[in-house]
Amino acid sequence: MKGKLYAVGVGPGEPSLLTIKALKVLEEARVVAVPKGKAEKGSLALSIIKDYIKDKEVLELVFPMTDNKEVLEEFWEKAAEKVGALLEKGEKVVFATLGDPSLYSTFSYLKSYLEKQGNSFSVEVIPGINSFSAAASLLQLSLVEGDQNLAVVSAPQNISRLKEVLKIFDTVVILKVNKYLEEIMKVLEEMGLEDKGYFVSRCGREDEYFSRDLKGLLEEKLDYLSMIIVRK
Amino acid sequence: MKGKLYAVGVGPGEPSLLTIKALKVLEEARVVAVPKGKAEKGSLALSIIKDYIKDKEVLELVFPMTDNKEVLEEFWEKAAEKVGALLEKGEKVVFATLGDPSLYSTFSYLKSYLEKQGNSFSVEVIPGINSFSAAASLLQLSLVEGDQNLAVVSAPQNISRLKEVLKIFDTVVILKVNKYLEEIMKVLEEMGLEDKGYFVSRCGREDEYFSRDLKGLLEEKLDYLSMIIVRK
Repeated sequence: MKGKLYAVGVGPGEPSLLTIKALKVLEEARVVAVPKGKAEKGSLALSIIKDYIKDKEVLELVFPMTDNKEVLEEFWEKAAEKVGALLEKGEKVVFATLGDPSLYSTFSYLKSYLEKQGNSFSVEVIPGINSFSAAASLLQLSLVEGDQNLAVVSAPQNISRLKEVLKIFDTVVILKVNKYLEEIMKVLEEMGLEDKGYFVSRCGREDEYFSRDLKGLLEEKLDYLSMIIVRK
Repeated sequence: MKGKLYAVGVGPGEPSLLTIKALKVLEEARVVAVPKGKAEKGSLALSIIKDYIKDKEVLELVFPMTDNKEVLEEFWEKAAEKVGALLEKGEKVVFATLGDPSLYSTFSYLKSYLEKQGNSFSVEVIPGINSFSAAASLLQLSLVEGDQNLAVVSAPQNISRLKEVLKIFDTVVILKVNKYLEEIMKVLEEMGLEDKGYFVSRCGREDEYFSRDLKGLLEEKLDYLSMIIVRK
């Protein structure tokens, strides 16, 4: 009997933004695995679904936020061993991931480590509401219309070619902006786009925050889960 | 008493991919408005939600697929008049739109025509699962990881700069590919990416179809709702 691994996107934060299908998969699960960044802290994905899975066994998997590949690899191997042990018993395991499993999720790593460790299992992926769609809903902003085009980029890797991207695309979603606000502002000013930006932080959570005054944020300490949407 | 207009994303096709929040808003509605392309044909959005809204008044709004702006404008004005009349009575009207309301939805047009006609109403937008997240789930494909970046472009407007976009982005979702398959294939071959494409059509519907053999599709008549995902 082969085990089955579900990747369930739980959306950006509001529990009611789970899909009906995601809820059904969670309700039918015995074990729900959730990622978290620190052993001593809670899991964001778990906080979203906790009311839906009161009777379930929860498996918390720690994936520290570090660039040290050796450390990360060790944590990944440990996580895959735990999940793999359940799959080998023929269990269904649901991995709950923030947003959508295909966009910046840790699910692809978990899956590849499970495969590397020689586990045999089937997979089903349930999509979720991603953070920029939730942000656009909050702002009542249409991201793209007709034949327009959209770019989703991460600030750390794309700050040097942001201008190039902004030239080609009608709308650019810049993720992980917390340390790059000043540089982004500079590019927007150079391109006459300084009034086209929307800052959104922790969208879908109780402390969600948005602002069109990017300059006013320069002195603030910004959250890691912050984005800027530039809508030309 | 001011009316309220809800934009509800109903996802790509599978009724269970509606969010819990979208379902709640639909259940509480008296009138549900849906877009459709031809007066004599059914509405795709309606076909997704029909089992959830059996007791509701359905307002079908025709938006023909034409590039003739005058014709379109006439249909838009008519649609806005119908919705506006309900809003002016203080009603709540739910506009159900395919996918996500912020991505290529007709909702932004409806809203702007309603505003032009001087209606006063409040707005709430409920995000939905977009077509490329659903396609990625179907393919069990991770679109972007870590600090990678994603482009979503429409084939008709971007075919000439597809190479440029493919150079910058890790993953490119090309929408409306039905008439551009040959040109896209040519670019992929020139860039050595001919085995990196995934074709997906009518994702989330009963007749959904996907293929990695893009060449094999060159002789086929392709659906308007087709996309190619290029994952480098």
